[in-house]
Amino acid sequence: MACELVAIGGRMDANRWVPASSGNLSARIDRSTIGITRSGVHKGRLEPADIIAVGLDGLAVDPTAKPSAETLLHCQLYRMDPAIGAVLHGHSVEATALSLVTDAEELVLRDYEILKAFPGIGTHEVVARVPIFDNDQDIARLSMRIAPSLTPLPIGYILRGHGVYAWGPDVERCFWRLEALEFLISCECERRRML
Amino acid sequence: MACELVAIGGRMDANRWVPASSGNLSARIDRSTIGITRSGVHKGRLEPADIIAVGLDGLAVDPTAKPSAETLLHCQLYRMDPAIGAVLHGHSVEATALSLVTDAEELVLRDYEILKAFPGIGTHEVVARVPIFDNDQDIARLSMRIAPSLTPLPIGYILRGHGVYAWGPDVERCFWRLEALEFLISCECERRRML
Amino acid sequence: MACELVAIGGRMDANRWVPASSGNLSARIDRSTIGITRSGVHKGRLEPADIIAVGLDGLAVDPTAKPSAETLLHCQLYRMDPAIGAVLHGHSVEATALSLVTDAEELVLRDYEILKAFPGIGTHEVVARVPIFDNDQDIARLSMRIAPSLTPLPIGYILRGHGVYAWGPDVERCFWRLEALEFLISCECERRRML
Amino acid sequence: MACELVAIGGRMDANRWVPASSGNLSARIDRSTIGITRSGVHKGRLEPADIIAVGLDGLAVDPTAKPSAETLLHCQLYRMDPAIGAVLHGHSVEATALSLVTDAEELVLRDYEILKAFPGIGTHEVVARVPIFDNDQDIARLSMRIAPSLTPLPIGYILRGHGVYAWGPDVERCFWRLEALEFLISCECERRRML
Repeated sequence: MACELVAIGGRMDANRWVPASSGNLSARIDRSTIGITRSGVHKGRLEPADIIAVGLDGLAVDPTAKPSAETLLHCQLYRMDPAIGAVLHGHSVEATALSLVTDAEELVLRDYEILKAFPGIGTHEVVARVPIFDNDQDIARLSMRIAPSLTPLPIGYILRGHGVYAWGPDVERCFWRLEALEFLISCECERRRML
Repeated sequence: MACELVAIGGRMDANRWVPASSGNLSARIDRSTIGITRSGVHKGRLEPADIIAVGLDGLAVDPTAKPSAETLLHCQLYRMDPAIGAVLHGHSVEATALSLVTDAEELVLRDYEILKAFPGIGTHEVVARVPIFDNDQDIARLSMRIAPSLTPLPIGYILRGHGVYAWGPDVERCFWRLEALEFLISCECERRRML
Repeated sequence: MACELVAIGGRMDANRWVPASSGNLSARIDRSTIGITRSGVHKGRLEPADIIAVGLDGLAVDPTAKPSAETLLHCQLYRMDPAIGAVLHGHSVEATALSLVTDAEELVLRDYEILKAFPGIGTHEVVARVPIFDNDQDIARLSMRIAPSLTPLPIGYILRGHGVYAWGPDVERCFWRLEALEFLISCECERRRML
Repeated sequence: MACELVAIGGRMDANRWVPASSGNLSARIDRSTIGITRSGVHKGRLEPADIIAVGLDGLAVDPTAKPSAETLLHCQLYRMDPAIGAVLHGHSVEATALSLVTDAEELVLRDYEILKAFPGIGTHEVVARVPIFDNDQDIARLSMRIAPSLTPLPIGYILRGHGVYAWGPDVERCFWRLEALEFLISCECERRRML
């Protein structure tokens, strides 16, 4: 599992979604434990030892380890849905810029074939709403603000000026959903550039 | 042939034309059979076993195999022209966004040297029309809507909000045409960005 | 020399400057002969045998070989200046689109530090003029239209809707100049996007 | 240390931040000496011998070696702060174009989570000011113009029409800060493209 996250970090980096030490990646170990990236490392150059075991309460199994500052946002998702096996969070230029040029509280997506990449969507003729939350350094408070938007689970969410959260049953599928979300966000940016 | 499609999938992925499990790739096996990518796999990480033999009626030779949902659009092209040896369909941000900012039924291209990449075109002083079809989850119905535009064969076509279809005598040449089409679409986007 | 062109073709392709079989690459063999890419091959996937010996009159040493259709434009440059050791021509989206959104006959560049990449320029406080020529399938006629603009040699030139020509003392330095030219063109595009 | 700079040059090149022979890279050797890239080489294809030992007065230890023309700008930073272990300067299209479309003397950044990549910043709710200096070929004069803006040290600075300077405790961390700065500049460009 740690090796899978290391590899996905490299693919996220190749897309330029994890500049500096930004982003965080996790995968479920068992019902009550996840592995999540250490704070302050480059996610494109991870080593397996950079993946830290954390309980779903957000506390590291080894209390000397320092997991990502945003660990609670990951835990919130794993607690919501036992089918979630991985959570990926990246910082793309497009998601950051798009969320800052609007003060809308959601990104409304329709007519995109790629929406079929998400579970339960079988046609482009849907309206998918991706919530956009104002950024907050108080992660506990932020997670409470996010909670009401997670039932039912959206296709992902955006933190304004910060980046995207995606989840899926395993690391590979979660990456696919992140790709699809970033693709949709890039399309929205491109449409605005052309107006 | 399967290995060629695997390799081309990697090159399409390097261009970011196959996010998540999008896109589909096929090549002719013989007069009445093609190999086409399995549904629900990432086209940048194919294995030869992900290429499924399908008759030109769209039915898999092995009825337990699940070929791409858009198999009929591939078959339609192979039936139209026995010289077609490969069909590639990708999802680029540019083709998706450009087709959604217009309700035009074609993309009109002129003055581009790269148009010479297409058969029968020996000068930039032509007008090439790339049909844009509204997307449809009913692939049989969509193929009937496409049919009248295939005589004579255009240089490719676009499904709105979805992506590009390109074809050629073999996998490598088909990729060249896809590159040329995506290049033209990127130029059209860039021109609109600069206005 | 052939191997150098093969390698540079790969670097041009990594920049997406040679889609399909576009672009052409050459290097001087001796005072009166150059090696130039064969017509109709992908310049990102060259093999040494794809480099054809051609006299400065544009005729292939082996009359059965088919050099690039634009060979005369290369020869014109080698004849102009014996210090030219390599010529590279690529098709970028930016050069293609920028030259089509204007009917100006030159691109006027000033204030760019990168201008110092060109011989004889030691400061950003210069005005460099890159001629833009209307495209023409009659290469002999086109070369006559280009000729008056080559004394003194500009930093490169652009064919409208087609691409950039760059030259240098050897293949590596020529690539640097192509990089600098494409960088400048991308800056000009980016500035227009932001207006 | 030389090998680290060679590797970072490759990563800068992969981002297209060092076209032609642009950019320069340095790392501290000891209290009074740094290693800096030779003038006139491609920073994406460095060899260890291209790293030249230079005193903090800007003079090469080996007087026959020719260090980067901008060596004094590096030395100025190392003299300012003994904790600086590396300085990287690149030329991106975005930094070049953005600094030329404005005559502002600083880039004002706020609301970006990625600002936390810089020392002393623990929240997106700050205002970071990146000075933009008019370019000057007289590097001694330019460094005097820059000096007043370095107390306290900003998160980096931009030379107009030229590029970005970033610094950090070691080569790897310095690259992270360069990534973060370029990310921020790209976001600012993207926001302007969408307006």
